[in-house]
Amino acid sequence: MADFHLMRRLAKPDGGKIVMLVLDGVGGLPIEPGGPTELEAAATPNMDLLAREGSLGLAIPIGHGITPGSGPAHLALFGYDPLTYEIGRGVLESFGIGLAVGPADVAARGNFCSLDENGLITDRRAGRIPTEKGEELCRLLSAIELPGVETEIKAVKEYRFALILRGAGLDWHLADTDPQVVGKAPLPVKALRPEAAHTADLVRAWANEARSILAGHHPANGFTLRGFSSDPNLPKYADVYQLKAACVAVYPMYRGLSQLVGMDVLATDPHDGPADEFDRVAAGWDRFDFFFVHIKYIDSRGEDGDFAGKIQVIEQVDDALPGLLRLKPDVLIITGDHSTPAKMRSHSWHPVPTLLWAPATHRPDGGRAYGETECIKGSLGMFPATELMPLALAHAGRLKKFGA
Amino acid sequence: MADFHLMRRLAKPDGGKIVMLVLDGVGGLPIEPGGPTELEAAATPNMDLLAREGSLGLAIPIGHGITPGSGPAHLALFGYDPLTYEIGRGVLESFGIGLAVGPADVAARGNFCSLDENGLITDRRAGRIPTEKGEELCRLLSAIELPGVETEIKAVKEYRFALILRGAGLDWHLADTDPQVVGKAPLPVKALRPEAAHTADLVRAWANEARSILAGHHPANGFTLRGFSSDPNLPKYADVYQLKAACVAVYPMYRGLSQLVGMDVLATDPHDGPADEFDRVAAGWDRFDFFFVHIKYIDSRGEDGDFAGKIQVIEQVDDALPGLLRLKPDVLIITGDHSTPAKMRSHSWHPVPTLLWAPATHRPDGGRAYGETECIKGSLGMFPATELMPLALAHAGRLKKFGA
Repeated sequence: MADFHLMRRLAKPDGGKIVMLVLDGVGGLPIEPGGPTELEAAATPNMDLLAREGSLGLAIPIGHGITPGSGPAHLALFGYDPLTYEIGRGVLESFGIGLAVGPADVAARGNFCSLDENGLITDRRAGRIPTEKGEELCRLLSAIELPGVETEIKAVKEYRFALILRGAGLDWHLADTDPQVVGKAPLPVKALRPEAAHTADLVRAWANEARSILAGHHPANGFTLRGFSSDPNLPKYADVYQLKAACVAVYPMYRGLSQLVGMDVLATDPHDGPADEFDRVAAGWDRFDFFFVHIKYIDSRGEDGDFAGKIQVIEQVDDALPGLLRLKPDVLIITGDHSTPAKMRSHSWHPVPTLLWAPATHRPDGGRAYGETECIKGSLGMFPATELMPLALAHAGRLKKFGA
Repeated sequence: MADFHLMRRLAKPDGGKIVMLVLDGVGGLPIEPGGPTELEAAATPNMDLLAREGSLGLAIPIGHGITPGSGPAHLALFGYDPLTYEIGRGVLESFGIGLAVGPADVAARGNFCSLDENGLITDRRAGRIPTEKGEELCRLLSAIELPGVETEIKAVKEYRFALILRGAGLDWHLADTDPQVVGKAPLPVKALRPEAAHTADLVRAWANEARSILAGHHPANGFTLRGFSSDPNLPKYADVYQLKAACVAVYPMYRGLSQLVGMDVLATDPHDGPADEFDRVAAGWDRFDFFFVHIKYIDSRGEDGDFAGKIQVIEQVDDALPGLLRLKPDVLIITGDHSTPAKMRSHSWHPVPTLLWAPATHRPDGGRAYGETECIKGSLGMFPATELMPLALAHAGRLKKFGA
């Protein structure tokens, strides 16, 4: 992993500009034996030119065989060992719907569920109620008042919601109330350490009131809470890497993650395509040293099992790329947070094709195109994703020599 | 890194002979896109033949993106994790000018500086006085006598010098007196732990006297001291690897480093070229199991930005190589401590092309030449430089099986 002790010791405040372009879920698999992956099938003349000039390799997000969620996969790209720095589910879920979670707040992920007359769970997902029903219930629950803290509750999708408590003296060390099986009652709210007893009291009070409110709303007449968590107080890009960093991302989750590591989030429109996102980078170009640019829909098409659709989004990025290259970044990294093969319709553990282009210092490796098979032969080799940040800093001339 | 616990457990006292030929700074970069690196441009028929027979790979000295100094880079080649075993600047600087530093000694790197009438630093490098002036001042300062300890002071280059204290009860845990900025006075000599109080008193006394001596010598009327350190008492080759090891190196720095790990330093002449150095190996052949052979001028030409000059020294080594091969080493490793691309005129973080030739056991990989691009495809892969020693021992038949 990026050794933060070493980074803090070696990072310089000046140097070149770095762009990390993350094609969410870009890695893939051939559909037919002998066929190309999504990335290999896509017509990407601009990326292929960069590949011929620069260095290729394969990034391992977490470890061999480990399929990452979006949170840990991005932490790894940012240089944070995802096994050391874990972000709670409550925080991630809140970010995903645009709710801020500060270091003093406590967030939880909630599920509406169905209870029988004895209070035992009969369906952990409340019959997958429509999102509109979830929104209606959240509106009702938002009327609950607690002494000394504010609460915010917001529907996510179908039976899912996020609950946030904001106030002094909160502590997120609470146990999940989800028993993970039907036939049992939701578990009581329980503090995992003495300091969290007050927070447990508050959540218990909230839960009691919520139960009364929901009583008549079968199949969503109950709920469970899990992933109690807070802003994990991660080291910040300015401190660790001496970088003024900006995030350009359309989805709230990635904007939230980048805030956790101290990036400024640049304004975007939910309908921004790759070209628009690159325009956002251009608008902020003079104010930052580092840009994290996130392209979501490659992963989405992969999750849909839509091989052709995934190719299409990759090609959109390639079409727009000259807009980014016009800014003359000193270091451009094109990678993904993980693989999402359309063939699997899900995230996967396969190493992620990665391109490093830094004309002053990259070591060309004879790669002919940006794709999985070429990346296997690349001069970056197979490496932990957490090593991308040290590499980026080195190529930007932002690291001092280690030792004399 | 080489796991010393494992090495101590598995190393055998008998086996084949190993030569580690270190081409300082051998890794490079193309000057023109699509062009060769220095090593690839050099005509190296002998090394290329070894490459076709043996195994290739790329060594990472410290970590991805980390540019090493010569000290840590060599420790890595010797199998010592450079993040665990750090050698102080005072010791390295002393080695560089041929001064010995034993475990009981304390060495510091000194800088002459310019002080104004209030004793504040106006130039941290004393206007880069000529080396002759530095030598003159060091002669004056060598007259200072301290109770119970000997002092040795020697000019390095321009404004730099090394100071060594030798005597009983010394402790190197002193803080730097260099404030690192102009406009401040040199910091007082300070012990970093109680055991170093006596040493701090001695250095303070030395500093007071030195200030009076230098008073009339503006722009070199002051000085700072840093990198107080001692022989770090590293594990020795004989204990860790069961090897009788010898060093053949022209530059004092590398001779000093090899002594720290318990190598015998063979006599050399400052004007020895590669062929002469291989003759030194031949002369010691029967007395040792392991030879570290260091070729300096490849790095020097790289630091000069002299692409053609770097090629020339590489070709000299190749020309002389038959003299080494005549000795029939069981294992020959050709590598570098780090890369020094002429394009960058400095050390760099790029992985180091490495050749392992051990006819009894190497696994050929179809490599056609000893060069960066071929090494990317090599059977050694990309590996931490600290793993070279276990590989060398294994190929020399010097490691027992692990477990039954």
